[in-house]
Formats: sequence, structure tokens, C-alpha cells
Amino acid sequence: MTSSAPTPELPPVYCPVEPAVHPAVEAIERRAVAWVDRVGLYRDDRERRRVLGTNSAEFYARFAPFGPEHNVQMAAHWVYWGFAFDDARCDAGPLSARPDLFLAMAGPLQRALEVPDERMSEDPLVAALQDVGRSFRECAGPVQVRRFTEAHRAWLFAVAWQIVNRVRGHMPGLADYTAMRLHCSGGPPTLAMLEIATAAEVPAREMDSPAVRALTEMAILVAAWDNDLHSYRKETVEGHTDQNLVNVLMRDGGGTAEEAMLRAVGLRDRVMARFLRLRDEVRRTASQDLRRYLDCLGHAIRGNIDWALRTPRYNDAEVAGVPMAAPRWVDRPSDPATEPLPIPGIAWWWDPLAP
Amino acid sequence: MTSSAPTPELPPVYCPVEPAVHPAVEAIERRAVAWVDRVGLYRDDRERRRVLGTNSAEFYARFAPFGPEHNVQMAAHWVYWGFAFDDARCDAGPLSARPDLFLAMAGPLQRALEVPDERMSEDPLVAALQDVGRSFRECAGPVQVRRFTEAHRAWLFAVAWQIVNRVRGHMPGLADYTAMRLHCSGGPPTLAMLEIATAAEVPAREMDSPAVRALTEMAILVAAWDNDLHSYRKETVEGHTDQNLVNVLMRDGGGTAEEAMLRAVGLRDRVMARFLRLRDEVRRTASQDLRRYLDCLGHAIRGNIDWALRTPRYNDAEVAGVPMAAPRWVDRPSDPATEPLPIPGIAWWWDPLAP
Repeated sequence: MTSSAPTPELPPVYCPVEPAVHPAVEAIERRAVAWVDRVGLYRDDRERRRVLGTNSAEFYARFAPFGPEHNVQMAAHWVYWGFAFDDARCDAGPLSARPDLFLAMAGPLQRALEVPDERMSEDPLVAALQDVGRSFRECAGPVQVRRFTEAHRAWLFAVAWQIVNRVRGHMPGLADYTAMRLHCSGGPPTLAMLEIATAAEVPAREMDSPAVRALTEMAILVAAWDNDLHSYRKETVEGHTDQNLVNVLMRDGGGTAEEAMLRAVGLRDRVMARFLRLRDEVRRTASQDLRRYLDCLGHAIRGNIDWALRTPRYNDAEVAGVPMAAPRWVDRPSDPATEPLPIPGIAWWWDPLAP
Repeated sequence: MTSSAPTPELPPVYCPVEPAVHPAVEAIERRAVAWVDRVGLYRDDRERRRVLGTNSAEFYARFAPFGPEHNVQMAAHWVYWGFAFDDARCDAGPLSARPDLFLAMAGPLQRALEVPDERMSEDPLVAALQDVGRSFRECAGPVQVRRFTEAHRAWLFAVAWQIVNRVRGHMPGLADYTAMRLHCSGGPPTLAMLEIATAAEVPAREMDSPAVRALTEMAILVAAWDNDLHSYRKETVEGHTDQNLVNVLMRDGGGTAEEAMLRAVGLRDRVMARFLRLRDEVRRTASQDLRRYLDCLGHAIRGNIDWALRTPRYNDAEVAGVPMAAPRWVDRPSDPATEPLPIPGIAWWWDPLAP
């Protein structure tokens, strides 16, 4: 909890999106707490506090500030589930150091999500995930559900990759870290739920187009890097460092943590700026459901930051040991360059992609 | 190469689908051999013989017996690539016993497939896969390409799971083995290429419907179990046993290998029968592209068997040590029961699924 390492301040970030939250957030949270208790997403009071302290209902009410209350509710349930799973099976717990056991658990878990067969496992986390899958099949169409389950598999695959790096003590280079982070952050399933939550179904030819794929990935990466920036403070205070954009940049380019954070924000702001420009271009010819989806990608980026400022997960003295400094906003990217980032695997986001 | 273990004969199987092969198969094979040489899918003459001995062009010309010649060609390239990858990185080679190293390799490989950025790696297998991805983006639409890349990830995820079981010496139960085999067999990417090869694009609401998902999975499982039956002979002769339906059934239910093979064919025939019945129902209201896709699922099951009879991969004395017995066909399933198989995770295939 105590450390002599400096805890650098979060530099200001570029995010010209207004905050928004679903008007039913309080009712959604109340019912979600009852669901968490009913399916048993914890083993003791401490775990219960930790799961509920994720404020997952508020989190998703910010991602989907409009949409049928019931659908947003069901999506919020998955977020609680995802954080509980993360704590129990990914970031901590006995499997966090055993990629083999993680895979042997994650394979059947993913299958249980995909199929309507009941009672695939005695594991309460599997049963709870099946409950989420069932609720999605009830309130959403097969296209939306398939997009979610595929994104869920992509996430688990990348989490296994992340665990492997951790066990090997391997800090990846920027390109590999970025490819991994695009999926291991939980962003893919979280954003795939936007359609379910808002009762929108983006036509396949739009959703799978390079432009919309790029926009989805950019939103995921900005949010994931923002999480890296937020958790870096917590990690340094707690005296441990894991794979994190700041560490990756320090290893690649040297310098202090503060310098690496500034570089990180520079990269992040350039992706944010490209996201906003491309989104404007795509919007012009977009279907109504795609416009709704693109709006929510922006809400997701902003909502992720607003949520991080308040959640005990990052801010509770018991958990993090340091109060979170409010981020400062700027109305221009800290790095104004509009060239592609020199990161193989995402440089194509700067190609001419608009339809 | 020699063993005193008995090598049971393959029992007759139920497959009322006529054989078919693309008329341009020879030209496709000739050009594919040139491609294999150009991208360097081997390190020496022995590996070259082994890769070309997969007869991948014939394999895919049976799966897609119609379709633009160029598109079938590009799909055949991936099949050669898949077998080379399988031999070098999955079933054999140093990574076959190291799930951690496999994941650290497979993560960036999958990313390289998905993105148009050039030169993601110095690894010739990655460069060859990027070549395939580029050719698909040129001859197919974004929806078809996305379906392929997602299926590709699902395959890699399940291969990692399979490697974990192998390393732990764990023979899974029938339910877990079935869930794993549905994806680790290479079936998902192979069948996802049917649309690319035949220039068909099944509407998302059809493709993602429970009925068509079930039909796709059934075709994958029948073909994968057929491969298990074919390779079981080879494995017993070579004196090693890996995860295989016959071994899973022997462990679960005891008895001799011959009895387990009969039970395996019974399960396989019941899935085949359900596939044919459900396909007839779905066909009635299917779009033209879906009908074409459903036809190819049948060609895939039949073609996989016809291919296995001829490929040196299973039949070459140098490779397998035993000549392959021609399968005998029967016009009724060996097990006539029409109830759902008691295997959690696939029992839902017997639900009322037709639109």
C-alpha cells in the first residue's frame, strides 16, 4: 500500500463528447444488485462489496444512455459478471498464473454461453453467464446475440494471451501489446452489447465494413488505454506493474513514468481524433441503427472515464490507496499529427475507409 | 510403425450425399502447388511432400464443387496453409506441447490475418496467411471475410484448449470433447470459406439463426468425428493415442476399440440424420444463397470422406503404415433413434429450430 514510487498525475485528455447517463440508472442498479445476489457472483461479503463496487449498472447506463430499460438492465448484468470473472479467474485467483487451467475452464464456459442447453456446469459463474445468454436470446435477435458471443470468445482468447505474457514475465512490444489490448480489455463484448441494449441492429454490410470495424476498434483501444492510464497510478502505489501502456512505452522508449504517460496520452489523443473524423464521414450515409451505434461508441469512451472517476474499484482507499485525481479535459489533441500511428495492425485505421 | 494392437476396420457410415468435385480441380491444384512453392509453406523436401500430399486442392474442390474458379483457388490456398500450420505449430513441432508459446504465436497471427497492414511479421507462415487474407478481401465482401476471420479465431482458441489437454494428459469427457472438437478440427474456417468459394452471401438473419448455426455445427462435427474414425487406425498403428472420439468413448464406456468405433458411428449417424431432416425443413423457406450454402455443407461431409480415402496424409505407407480400407456406405443410420443425443451443448440441435 505504501511505496516511494512517484504517482504521476493523469495528463489532460481529449474527449469532446458530452457526458450522458440512462435516466433509469438507479432502478437498473437496484435490480442488478438483486440479480448479483440471486446468482451468487461472490463467495463472501468482501467479494460482494468488490463486485457491487464496480458500479457496473452506472457504467453501462453511461455506455447506453438510451434504449429499453430492460435491455440495458440485461447488459449491466453481464458487466457485473465480467468484473467478477475478471477478479476470480483472470487478473487474480489461481488461474491468473495458469494459462493451461484458464483455457480448460474458458473453453466450456464459452460453449455454455452460446447454447440454450441448461445446466452445462455446476460452476456458479457458468450458470450466471448462461442466465445472461438466455436473457439476451429473449430480448435481442440472433444477429445481435451472435455478435456478442463472437466478441466474448475474442476476449477470452486475448485474456489467455495476456496471462501467458504475465506468467513468462514478458512485456510485449507496442504492436503486440496493442493487438492484445484490443481484445483482452473486455471491450469487444462490452461494445457488442450496445446493439442489444439500444435495440438497434446494424446491417451486416455496415457493421462488417472496414470503416465501422475500425471505429469499433478505435473506441475499444481508447477506452482500454484510458483504463491503463487510470490503473497505472493504482499499480504504482501498490508496487506492482503488469502489462500496461505506460510500462510498454517506458520499456520501448525509456524515460520517466511521467514522460511515458505524456507519450501515452499523445497516442491516445491521435486515435481519438481519427475516431471523430472518420465517424463524421461514416455518419453521412449511415442507417439509423448505425448512427445510434456510432453515438454509443462516443458515449462509451466518455462514459468509461466518467465511471472510472467514481467507481470504488479504482478509487476506494481500501482498494487503491490513492484518491483519483479528476481528469482535466482539453479541447484539442495533445498531439495534433493526423498521420497514421506507426503501429502495425492499427495503421490501417488511417486508410481512406469511408464508404 | 509396427504394433501388435488390432487395427479395427472402419464400420459402414450413413452419408446419402452424392460425390461431387469442382470441374477445374486439376488447374486449381497446379496453381496451388505454385503458390505453396512461392510462399514457402515448408522448410525441406520432406515437408513439401507432406504439404502437397494433403491434396488440399482436391479437398476443397469437393467442398465447393461449384463457384468461381478463382475463389475456390483462394480457399484451397488456405487449406494448404492450414495443414502446414497444423503440422508445424499444433499437432507436432515444439509448440504442440507448449500452450503458452502457442498462444503467444497465435494471437499476433490472428491479428495479421484480420488487418490489411503489410509485413506484420518475419514469419513465413504469417506472411502466407496474410496473402490469403488479402486475396479474400479482394474476391469477397466484408461480411464473408468477417465470418471467416471470426471462425479462424474460434479454431485457434480451441486448438489451444486441445494442446492444454494433451500437455496435462487429460482425456476430456464426451461433452467437453464435443465442444472442443466443434472448433479445433479446422471445421469453422473451412466451412466459413464456402461462401467465399461459391460467391454466396447468406443474409445475416439466416446465417445467425439457431437452425443454420445448428446445421453448420452438425456438418463440422460429423466431418470431425469422421476424421477421428479415419485417424484412429493410423494412430493405433503408430502406437500413440491422442484425444479422439474412440478413446473418449472407451474411457467413458469401456469395451474394446471395435465396440467404441461402433458406438462412435452410432452417434455420428444420428447427427447425420438430424442434419438431413433439419436441412430439408430449412431449405423450404431459404434464400438462394442459403440453399447453395446448405448444399455445400452436404458436399463437405461427403467430400471429407472421399478425400480421406485418397490423401497420402492418411494413406501413404510412409506416413500411416496402413492402407486405408474403403468405407462401406449404408442407406440408413446405424442407430435409428431420433431423440436428442445426451450430450450437453449439442442436445439443442434437436429442438424445434426450423424457421
